[in-house]
Amino acid sequence: MPGTESKKYRIALDAMGGDFAPINEVNGAILAFKNLKDKIELEIVLVGNENKIKAAFAQNDSSGLNYSIVNAEEVVTMDDDPTAALKKKKNSSLFKGVELHSQGYVDAFVSAGNTGAVMSTATVMLGRISGVSRPTIGQFFPSVLKTPVFVLDVGANIDCKPRHLYEFAVMGSINVSQTYSLENPRIGLLNIGEEPSKGTEIILETHKLMKESHLNFIGNVEGGDIFSAGADVIVCDGFTGNIILKFAESISVFLKNKFHQFADKGLINKFLTASAMPSLKSVFKDFDYQEYGGVPLLGVNGVVIIGHGKSSPRAIQNMIYKALEFVRKDINGKIENALNIPAISEQI
Amino acid sequence: MPGTESKKYRIALDAMGGDFAPINEVNGAILAFKNLKDKIELEIVLVGNENKIKAAFAQNDSSGLNYSIVNAEEVVTMDDDPTAALKKKKNSSLFKGVELHSQGYVDAFVSAGNTGAVMSTATVMLGRISGVSRPTIGQFFPSVLKTPVFVLDVGANIDCKPRHLYEFAVMGSINVSQTYSLENPRIGLLNIGEEPSKGTEIILETHKLMKESHLNFIGNVEGGDIFSAGADVIVCDGFTGNIILKFAESISVFLKNKFHQFADKGLINKFLTASAMPSLKSVFKDFDYQEYGGVPLLGVNGVVIIGHGKSSPRAIQNMIYKALEFVRKDINGKIENALNIPAISEQI
Repeated sequence: MPGTESKKYRIALDAMGGDFAPINEVNGAILAFKNLKDKIELEIVLVGNENKIKAAFAQNDSSGLNYSIVNAEEVVTMDDDPTAALKKKKNSSLFKGVELHSQGYVDAFVSAGNTGAVMSTATVMLGRISGVSRPTIGQFFPSVLKTPVFVLDVGANIDCKPRHLYEFAVMGSINVSQTYSLENPRIGLLNIGEEPSKGTEIILETHKLMKESHLNFIGNVEGGDIFSAGADVIVCDGFTGNIILKFAESISVFLKNKFHQFADKGLINKFLTASAMPSLKSVFKDFDYQEYGGVPLLGVNGVVIIGHGKSSPRAIQNMIYKALEFVRKDINGKIENALNIPAISEQI
Repeated sequence: MPGTESKKYRIALDAMGGDFAPINEVNGAILAFKNLKDKIELEIVLVGNENKIKAAFAQNDSSGLNYSIVNAEEVVTMDDDPTAALKKKKNSSLFKGVELHSQGYVDAFVSAGNTGAVMSTATVMLGRISGVSRPTIGQFFPSVLKTPVFVLDVGANIDCKPRHLYEFAVMGSINVSQTYSLENPRIGLLNIGEEPSKGTEIILETHKLMKESHLNFIGNVEGGDIFSAGADVIVCDGFTGNIILKFAESISVFLKNKFHQFADKGLINKFLTASAMPSLKSVFKDFDYQEYGGVPLLGVNGVVIIGHGKSSPRAIQNMIYKALEFVRKDINGKIENALNIPAISEQI
């Protein structure tokens, strides 16, 4: 990575990615500069419609900030096919941003755009880390502990073989250990029971594979172990993970609805619900994706951070910081090492 | 069914099934008699250790209640293998209760015992309804609507073919329409996206099958559509369904924990949390399995209601009522008819 030696980092930001682009992207970049605590040299390269980006900067005081703009006329929308950028929109902010990374001009690429499109473009343009069969995306879930639980895959790979799930576990373990300075995160395999005899053929084989590995594998975990933090990293295929993720994201809306139904039953209820709101808000904060600020696309030969379409400026800032962290800690190097331990890679 | 004509119903209750057996079972039976609103003749046959059952009845005023006891010395525990009753414990309350049903002595069997054991024993002893490949278990999830959402399968069948999922949809549809007097419940297929092109091979085929059927199939639904009631019946394999169910069951414990963490931060927080408790409790009530009082084992040629091991007397009462409803509405007859419509059964 060019930035690692010189202590100067260059991050490409897809300025047209999110639902509120480029406003939130520009404001997020400004926040990232203003709140930067580490003494490093950071340059943010905003990729997208130059006029719109300049107009957004003009609404703020951005003097002295080390940013640049790379013009890109096209936009990959949320409705576009995952292969849209690769096949049709080579002038899109998404394609150009990934291209800047693949050419070594930037150290990382950050986007709140179409997740599928970012993933397929990055996988094709950057390639995979040696030892990785399939890149993956995980998500942090709030838990009863102070550290959240990392569940992966959450939608990138819907059909998975044991080897894929094993690789997800290795990548998840390194991501969590580096993000939360947690030595040997506990790895759990999501299943319908704790007994090693439970589950589908694929789960049974994966269990065996993980048990024989160097991972801190604690065995099968169940749906209830996510919130209770029965493991630090929980591995599943992208079908199950995506359904769990979307279900989890719906909890706060559901609870708010139920609280309102309760409040509507009378004045006392209204008062009680109003008093409940501060504690409720504090709880809901844990469900707030903005806290985490995007997740890495693990396994590609580069640093790619993907955020929610609704990402706020603070979420964008956190995505930029996450990219910086990924580069500085050389997490990809650690993944490559872990997946190329001779004993493991030979036996599988 | 013998009871349908004579307006006299006989329900066998596994008195040794739940974690608090036979106390909660006996108290539940007493409640069922006392709260019975319909003018029907009900006999409850408690199956289990006669002395213990009598002792539990002795602690209550049970004069005039139409119950009988069938002695059974053995107990299938929660740790027993699903085939335990069939292979080793033929003197268990579980086996004897199902046997009473298979011999036509009772109209239904109700148990808060080992779900897997009830399921395999009932499937072997009672057989399947004509047209059903695999019996299934669903669960009601609370939703933003007044009626809950029925998700099935939730763990009985972890590997499912399209035909199985289609049958689950038919059985779920009839169960919901009869339970909530809901005409043509909306059927959704749980998936990682709404587009018909999304999902695994099995999901794609199932989507096609459901679309061609007589079901009110509204297409794919996502994890977020459970709480938001995007469909009345949501179909999935038992692997996904079980993980979602256990995840959902963990929400209230998680939230209580988070509220306590919030309260511990200071006196004002403590006060606010205390004020929040009534509304919280009202919301948590929706997560309370006792409200639903057990679920039917759908597809067996008999009426079998399975409840949670922790079932309270009220839950046991509701399970007995659920069994009565199942018998009186001839839900199995309706399932058989629906799965033997010539046009459908031939084409699949």
